[in-house]
Parts: sequence; structure tokens; C-alpha cells
Amino acid sequence: MNDFDGWRKRIDEIDQQLVKLLNERSRCAVEIGHMKKQLDLPAWQPEREAEILRNVVKANGGPLDDAAICRLFERIIDEARSLERHAMETGGSLRKE
Amino acid sequence: MNDFDGWRKRIDEIDQQLVKLLNERSRCAVEIGHMKKQLDLPAWQPEREAEILRNVVKANGGPLDDAAICRLFERIIDEARSLERHAMETGGSLRKE
Repeated sequence: MNDFDGWRKRIDEIDQQLVKLLNERSRCAVEIGHMKKQLDLPAWQPEREAEILRNVVKANGGPLDDAAICRLFERIIDEARSLERHAMETGGSLRKE
Repeated sequence: MNDFDGWRKRIDEIDQQLVKLLNERSRCAVEIGHMKKQLDLPAWQPEREAEILRNVVKANGGPLDDAAICRLFERIIDEARSLERHAMETGGSLRKE
């Protein structure tokens, strides 16, 4: 195996971990959606989203710059919010559809 | 700490891991960019991107559906490609800018 294949293999391993973590994060968002429904809280809480972005920028050591990290987490938050809303509206299954 | 705070704390922990992995993935992409430059290969290799998307869909156990996973990885690949191109054009610093 040359170095080229080695780096790609490492990317594939990281991607497996990313898929797991993104789904675990989504499960948390679904649970929060259920609780928001019980507590009659709104799905969209902009101050919490701002806090998430502050936290990830603080944790960022690069090489991705802060703008790139924010763009990625805006998408991650957006996908989580879709699932959370779905959970609030329907009682939301946790199974892949 | 109530359950609500507990789930948010878990999300914050996951986000710390995601930031680390996304940056580690980007470092791999920068290394690949350097090698592509040496080997005179193009930055954009659509068949490799298709392979990445097939791999992550295969690994996906939900609750994110396959379309959501693909949307997220299209963004992740896009940010990696920007850094990789930068590395090919400039010799690319690995430091956060």
C-alpha cells in the first residue's frame, strides 16, 4: 500500500466514526425534541445554536478555519433540527427511514 | 442537572469529537493534495467522491436518513477539497488561519 492509499484509508476510518457520531448526535436531538414537546418549548432556540457555534470555534485547532467549522456545524444543526421537529410533530421514530 | 441539560451536555461532548475528527480528516486531505501535486493528478476525482458517499451510506444506521448523510458528507468533502486545492497551489500551511 502506498502513502496515497494510506491517507485515503485513514479518511475512510474517520468517516465511519463521523457517521456514528452524527447519528448519536441526532438521537440526542430527537430526545430533546420529545422533551421540548412535553415542556411546550419552541423547536428553534437561536441562543442555543449560537452557543453550539461558539463552543466548536473555541475547540477548533485547524487546519479548517473557523468559518469552515461554522459552515459545517450550521448544516449539522440544520439536519438535527429537522429530525427534532419531526420528533415533536409525530412522536418520531428513531429508525432509519 | 435535568435530562434536558444532560442531552445537551452529550451533544457538546460529541461536537468536541466531531471538531477533532473533521480537522484530522482535513489534514489527510492536505497530505493527499501534496501527493496529487507531486504525481500531477487532478484535485477533483469524482469517482473517489462517489466511493466516499457509498461508504458512508453503507455505514449509516440512522436516525439520519441516507439523503441527510449524503448532504452532510457533500459539505465535508467540499471543505476538504478547498483545503486540498489550497495545499496543491501554495504548499499549504497546516495551521489554522
